[in-house]
Amino acid sequence: MVKHLADVPSNIVTNEIDLTNQSPYRQNYHVESESGSLGDPNGFSYFNHQYHLFYQWSPLAFSKNPHYTQHGWKHLVSKNLIDWQDLGAGIESDTVLDKHGTYSGSALPVDNRLFLMYTGNTWTNTESEDDWHRVPYQVGAMMDKDNKVKKWMTPLLKGPLKGYTGHFRDPKIFKKNGIYYAVLGIQRENLTGAALLIKSSDLHKWSIVGEIKADHNNFGYMWECPDYYEINNHGILEFCPQGLETSNNKYRNIYQNGYLIGNHLNLENGQFDCGEFHELDKGFDFYAMQTMRDSKGRRLLIAWMGLPETKYPTEKFHYTGCMIFPRELQVKDGVIIQKPVKEIKDLYQEQFLIEGKTNKESIKLEAGKSNSRDIQLELDCTQAYDTILDLFANEDNTDHLRLIFNHKKQEFIVNRGHCGLPISEAYGAERSCHLDLNKKIKVRILQDVSSAEIFLNDGKDVFSMRVFTDNKNNHIFITSHCGEASYKAKINQLRYRK
Amino acid sequence: MVKHLADVPSNIVTNEIDLTNQSPYRQNYHVESESGSLGDPNGFSYFNHQYHLFYQWSPLAFSKNPHYTQHGWKHLVSKNLIDWQDLGAGIESDTVLDKHGTYSGSALPVDNRLFLMYTGNTWTNTESEDDWHRVPYQVGAMMDKDNKVKKWMTPLLKGPLKGYTGHFRDPKIFKKNGIYYAVLGIQRENLTGAALLIKSSDLHKWSIVGEIKADHNNFGYMWECPDYYEINNHGILEFCPQGLETSNNKYRNIYQNGYLIGNHLNLENGQFDCGEFHELDKGFDFYAMQTMRDSKGRRLLIAWMGLPETKYPTEKFHYTGCMIFPRELQVKDGVIIQKPVKEIKDLYQEQFLIEGKTNKESIKLEAGKSNSRDIQLELDCTQAYDTILDLFANEDNTDHLRLIFNHKKQEFIVNRGHCGLPISEAYGAERSCHLDLNKKIKVRILQDVSSAEIFLNDGKDVFSMRVFTDNKNNHIFITSHCGEASYKAKINQLRYRK
Repeated sequence: MVKHLADVPSNIVTNEIDLTNQSPYRQNYHVESESGSLGDPNGFSYFNHQYHLFYQWSPLAFSKNPHYTQHGWKHLVSKNLIDWQDLGAGIESDTVLDKHGTYSGSALPVDNRLFLMYTGNTWTNTESEDDWHRVPYQVGAMMDKDNKVKKWMTPLLKGPLKGYTGHFRDPKIFKKNGIYYAVLGIQRENLTGAALLIKSSDLHKWSIVGEIKADHNNFGYMWECPDYYEINNHGILEFCPQGLETSNNKYRNIYQNGYLIGNHLNLENGQFDCGEFHELDKGFDFYAMQTMRDSKGRRLLIAWMGLPETKYPTEKFHYTGCMIFPRELQVKDGVIIQKPVKEIKDLYQEQFLIEGKTNKESIKLEAGKSNSRDIQLELDCTQAYDTILDLFANEDNTDHLRLIFNHKKQEFIVNRGHCGLPISEAYGAERSCHLDLNKKIKVRILQDVSSAEIFLNDGKDVFSMRVFTDNKNNHIFITSHCGEASYKAKINQLRYRK
Repeated sequence: MVKHLADVPSNIVTNEIDLTNQSPYRQNYHVESESGSLGDPNGFSYFNHQYHLFYQWSPLAFSKNPHYTQHGWKHLVSKNLIDWQDLGAGIESDTVLDKHGTYSGSALPVDNRLFLMYTGNTWTNTESEDDWHRVPYQVGAMMDKDNKVKKWMTPLLKGPLKGYTGHFRDPKIFKKNGIYYAVLGIQRENLTGAALLIKSSDLHKWSIVGEIKADHNNFGYMWECPDYYEINNHGILEFCPQGLETSNNKYRNIYQNGYLIGNHLNLENGQFDCGEFHELDKGFDFYAMQTMRDSKGRRLLIAWMGLPETKYPTEKFHYTGCMIFPRELQVKDGVIIQKPVKEIKDLYQEQFLIEGKTNKESIKLEAGKSNSRDIQLELDCTQAYDTILDLFANEDNTDHLRLIFNHKKQEFIVNRGHCGLPISEAYGAERSCHLDLNKKIKVRILQDVSSAEIFLNDGKDVFSMRVFTDNKNNHIFITSHCGEASYKAKINQLRYRK
């Protein structure tokens, strides 16, 4: 592993980028890596009059002969959450505290600088050569307004902590009543996961408050990427539990991403009165979400539209992973609702307004040639047994991303099993949820070249997914069986981001 | 509607049969209709040294120009539950009590005759021509040893009963302590479903005991095809509730078929102490089950491997529907387990024994050219993330019925979305259940030309389904990802039934 990407012969780096650029699956307005792997978002924040987004970055992950590896945080900035400027390496693995990986973390503006807090991963062999242990360091760093990062060489905390294994990572920092806090993912010695709360008054000396104690938190062998924040009088603990067995139509992905919602967390003792665990996104590809509060007071969400340990067809082009389009979070009726940030309107180009009624034969909705669309639909499926919307469809509609609204079963199903290349088949080709189809519903879909984010009823249920299909498969069809459905569609073609 | 099939010009009947015989999807050893529609099994019984099976029968259901309809019970007999002799019409709709349909019912040997009990459907317009009401009659009939049926022209009961609608049908008769009882499906005036218990000492005069009162029976707008029986100290009430919303991976089909299990039903007052509702079969196509106790003391199950209001590709050949292969029911750990009756061994021809370990590339299991197989597998999936078994596969394994054993999620999924012609897509292409894959598992599959019945762990979970694929798609492939699975397969090719 090299310390800096700059140490790698430049033709090796550019070869990777050139190959990646040949991919037919490159996204239009979703952030993705210029080559190699993109993973967890990190340090999502607003500082110095712009949004900052870092991510887990390994640009040479798929390079070969000679193979170099480099790992760090990529750094991007944006004024509008759409057009992102690539600032290259944000943090790289170049010190004794992070020599085997600059793992995930977060950021918080402090005075005139941005404080970065992350996990430095190291391995050590204590006794014999084959007895390797993780030694995780929680590391602090300060970034100035010129985007220069200075790491603090005294770790904030060193793991493993007593009673826990070396799985201790992903600090998410927040400030309340003048005190700094962070939540981290940690694994107990009995191999169960938890979220640990720590605190500091000066960012340098951190003490352990203890585990977050919730009624419904006893599951999974590890929790990754926790996040705690408050919306009005609600406290929300988000995290990614690993090791949940599938239960009916829940927890179908390899790892989960969800939240507990309740009263404000007691920051003195970690007590958290909350309800049961909800999956944040019910789709196929969603992980490692991170939130921030922006200058407008919005709680914004970013996440990796991908999963760990999962192969994607883009690996052929030596890259993988993209971000979801940023969402604004609100709480309604005790659950989180998610909406694309309103800045998406800056991407709008041609608009198509279509109204009609379905019949047994599929109707093609004419909505431009590019799959990059913001689709807003009002559907009345109350009179049909089922209504089917196909996206990414080929001319004869044999290949498509299929959305099924089944009135009889009051269910929504999305099936990507007949949509271009197969992905992660062992985890099934369908995701579903209960949906009240006795009333009109709203469906919003952010489509890009190789992804769809589906928002039902103003973001009450959200399904995010990658699809890898031919660019000519750009049609939209709608049909229904045993009765008519009526639809009003407002479809905006979206411009390329800068 | 004609009273008797014999009234229809014979060329019309044979044209239908000829067209049906052209279907490439005709089953080998599963009972199906010679033309038209096959529906609910009826009158499943053992009498006069042979098994009797009737079914809802409409042989001209898809005939056209000129179109005749006829409706009744088809009658089949068998010595071994495999080779069935077709006796033609058992009951036809030829009286004032059943002029609009000979609906479902049951049979019980009484002295030297077989008592048949069914619902005669009639419609009447009481006030104006457009105000049609159902008037259901519960009808008795006696069949002698020459298979001659004599209907009783005094109905056993006439509906609607006070407090209930005209949906009142499907009597299932049983005898206990010298008294005859029957359970029937009924709809309350508030449009919810129930099972009604009635009794008689002489088969002629019936009195109403009342609704079966269970803790967990308050769902659905109608219950069809109830059945009550006892296995050891367990009482079991099976029925088909209609109108259940999908809940996670439960109740995904258009209508359900399942059971309550508890103590013996109190026959005095209908009180039934039982647990929650279980689906009997978790597959795509299963409905209207009926059981009988045979001369060997076995509790045998038959069911329609199909669903109401569902189109199947065989309609092109003017027929639809088949039966499951008969199963023996037992109770283990408080739930029903199901196994194909052991008579299946009479069908065994060539046997293939195959052992091996999977790897990343699919391995083809060589097991003869016909898809008619009894496949018995022992799988050790404990070391692989997932293990995938493909049946009905084409040469390059792009089209198949896919069985997924996902160790990480402890889940079994069957996907028929890439298996020949689409079926009932609005209800999804996957069915799934929790499965403990930390230990070895047993998988048994009865394959036929156009169906598969999958038995997990000796019949603890069962998935039945139709598939309509090219007969050349007769390959079996196995593979696993991220680790090896080992398999022992015993595969019997099955002969054609006589």
